[in-house]
Amino acid sequence: MRLPVALLAATFLASQASAQSVDVAALRDAALKDEMAWDITEGLTTEVGQRLAGTEAEARARTWAIAKLKAMGFSNPRIEPFDMPVWVRGEETAEIVAPFPQKLVLAALGNSGATPAEGITAEIIGFSSLSELEATDSAKVRGKIVFVDHAMGTTQDGSSYGAFGGARRKGPSIASKKGALAIVIRSIGTDFHRNPHTGVQQWSDGATPIPAAALTLPDAEQLKRILARGKPVRMKLVLTPRNIGTRQSGNVMAEVPGRDPKAGIVLVGCHLDSWDLGTGAIDDAAGCGIVAAAAKRVMDAGKPLRTIRVVWFGAEEVGILGGAAYRDAHKGENHAVLAESDFGADRVYRFDTYVNQSAKPVVGRLAEVLAPIGIAKGNNEARGGSDIGPLAATGVPVIALRQDGTRYFDLHHTPDDTLDKVDRSQLAQNVAAWTAMIATVANVESELGPVGPPRDD
Amino acid sequence: MRLPVALLAATFLASQASAQSVDVAALRDAALKDEMAWDITEGLTTEVGQRLAGTEAEARARTWAIAKLKAMGFSNPRIEPFDMPVWVRGEETAEIVAPFPQKLVLAALGNSGATPAEGITAEIIGFSSLSELEATDSAKVRGKIVFVDHAMGTTQDGSSYGAFGGARRKGPSIASKKGALAIVIRSIGTDFHRNPHTGVQQWSDGATPIPAAALTLPDAEQLKRILARGKPVRMKLVLTPRNIGTRQSGNVMAEVPGRDPKAGIVLVGCHLDSWDLGTGAIDDAAGCGIVAAAAKRVMDAGKPLRTIRVVWFGAEEVGILGGAAYRDAHKGENHAVLAESDFGADRVYRFDTYVNQSAKPVVGRLAEVLAPIGIAKGNNEARGGSDIGPLAATGVPVIALRQDGTRYFDLHHTPDDTLDKVDRSQLAQNVAAWTAMIATVANVESELGPVGPPRDD
Repeated sequence: MRLPVALLAATFLASQASAQSVDVAALRDAALKDEMAWDITEGLTTEVGQRLAGTEAEARARTWAIAKLKAMGFSNPRIEPFDMPVWVRGEETAEIVAPFPQKLVLAALGNSGATPAEGITAEIIGFSSLSELEATDSAKVRGKIVFVDHAMGTTQDGSSYGAFGGARRKGPSIASKKGALAIVIRSIGTDFHRNPHTGVQQWSDGATPIPAAALTLPDAEQLKRILARGKPVRMKLVLTPRNIGTRQSGNVMAEVPGRDPKAGIVLVGCHLDSWDLGTGAIDDAAGCGIVAAAAKRVMDAGKPLRTIRVVWFGAEEVGILGGAAYRDAHKGENHAVLAESDFGADRVYRFDTYVNQSAKPVVGRLAEVLAPIGIAKGNNEARGGSDIGPLAATGVPVIALRQDGTRYFDLHHTPDDTLDKVDRSQLAQNVAAWTAMIATVANVESELGPVGPPRDD
Repeated sequence: MRLPVALLAATFLASQASAQSVDVAALRDAALKDEMAWDITEGLTTEVGQRLAGTEAEARARTWAIAKLKAMGFSNPRIEPFDMPVWVRGEETAEIVAPFPQKLVLAALGNSGATPAEGITAEIIGFSSLSELEATDSAKVRGKIVFVDHAMGTTQDGSSYGAFGGARRKGPSIASKKGALAIVIRSIGTDFHRNPHTGVQQWSDGATPIPAAALTLPDAEQLKRILARGKPVRMKLVLTPRNIGTRQSGNVMAEVPGRDPKAGIVLVGCHLDSWDLGTGAIDDAAGCGIVAAAAKRVMDAGKPLRTIRVVWFGAEEVGILGGAAYRDAHKGENHAVLAESDFGADRVYRFDTYVNQSAKPVVGRLAEVLAPIGIAKGNNEARGGSDIGPLAATGVPVIALRQDGTRYFDLHHTPDDTLDKVDRSQLAQNVAAWTAMIATVANVESELGPVGPPRDD
């Protein structure tokens, strides 16, 4: 069913002094047949593959990106480079040596320390949660390999990642401070395949780096069963990642120039880097395809009021370095609104905003143009994706098109993040949503701000 | 709905001189709450894990099996050893070096040759099917790495494995004879995870062993896309498996003694060995759990007319060596009927037979007791599973309880064949089906044979 959007648009436009006569509904519906986002996702994952931040592969991705944005007709495709420390994976094997000898499958976490080349062998002590580890005396942990389990389940909005991700983000530092030799965690994920979920962790002040890795869920369950037999369990662990020093990363950006330079920038972002195990199809080649395809569609419909800036951020996975570099370089510019696509390639089901109360009519307009493709209006507490987070934190309006994350943590940061996981029909729905959103906010006369820095109370 | 089985049984029994008064329907329904098959599957996969034929791990599995069959109360648990040549996996890595450098995930196929430790690098030539490779001049293949794709899809009865498995079974020999340096195939599987499907292949007469491996489906699709760009594609391949000489394997067996030694043996089998990448939960720990749990239930209901022999075969995966050893050692004995569980742990949906026309009433009886748990009568062309194949080929009746294979080739021979894939409710349905079948054929007076060797015309 098609809502009478033209009529609604007319009503809305009457309240706007000189709004552009863009047929947002028609742009949206045309985008449901989009091929550009797929073309970008397929191209980047096939012709570059994995693109770990700071490596030669990420540099090839930037070259690829510049050529693509140029070919699409965007203005001034460019790279803004920045330096960063680079950590790379080495050998990684694990085996139970007693009481039931067998290999387990795992992957080092970002910034993991290394074992000697010949590995370490020690007794395992298991914890059912991070808080159980936290509550345990150092004397019981010292000299052992810590295993931390958790109960993360599937959530559509991905909230279980925040709730249970502490095992990865904080577990290694806590284990280190208690004198553990190493730590293995149950992957922060929801699938049952023999594919580990890597991800970054930072050593807290005073924590000595120790080997830190994630077991696949089947392996974590196996280890739990083995521990449950009640006999001492010994593991041999070989992890040889290393820090290779300072290398260059960079943000890739390009624009659709607007008619009014003073009207502020509509920033649409994604991240170009990926983890090194898969080809980063859903995280986040698809996001780059979605935002670029949508911006291109709005560009082709006629010069918008506001400038649209497409930013393919670098070095997101390892600590949002591109997002911080962008904020430092561009915080003095007038950003009208920020938006990012970085939660896979499945359909958008809701949109949240972070705008001034005076922008309610614009939010209403977005609700009208997004409802026909299954997207409901959410709250006004959007915080943006990770890359736009640093700038958003300074007090800039945000629009968040929320994707269905039901499958996301089956694939996130695993070898399984490959092109075959992208559903072309859902990918096109994303492009339609983004096209409608960008066409609306890039052409509306009224401001979305001002907003103060978001509060998390 | 419960059929009036007691009534049907009475009608049937009236035609049998001295049939045992076993309440088959009651045994069947009690088995729907079976825990023993799970206990065996969980125990074998947890306490032994992978158990590649001829290795120390398979020997540990035999020790485990003897203890388990003894604890269950079976008579005369014993090992019948046999010698076999053993091939073991080494290092296995692959990467595209040009035009788009990236790693691919693969696993060596059984009996694969080895590359030098530093690997080989060569151009890839791709084929969309085995027949396309067969039809190609050696001059085009010589000195290259052959890639063979195929179009295997999911089938409930697993027939696509026979139809498309030639790429693995015959591809390496064909490629070798055409002068290929190595061969990589699309895994013979139906999932899209980064888990390769290994499996055995035998070198045909005159074929020199070459490195032979299976890419995961996502990697095979990636390689197809890269080849489709039309530029020369070069791959570096490191595969260092080796033959470690003659080792011991063995069949583990035990019995439920029958009242009449002349009434023939009801053989129920599975295989104890597994491939080395997973823990062999669905292939075939579950099968061993199913047949042993069912035999135990029939045993506990009172001494059957016929002896029930439980055989957990060794060395199935690498060439049905246990099945051949059993045939050689036992073909002189009177086997009333053979049955094997080796197609995962999902529900039985059909049963086929290979019996004499005179046994039609027994088939009818099976149809009656199996229908209430969703199992339909099939044909009289059962050929049995792989382990019972060698003996069945000499002309012995067979009953095949066919399992739903829809998921089977997602997991078969991959690292993903782990306990979490076993659905306990479907596993119990298998036990119920086997309990009903064994209780019927072990107690019926009439013969299921004679049958001649099966014909495949």
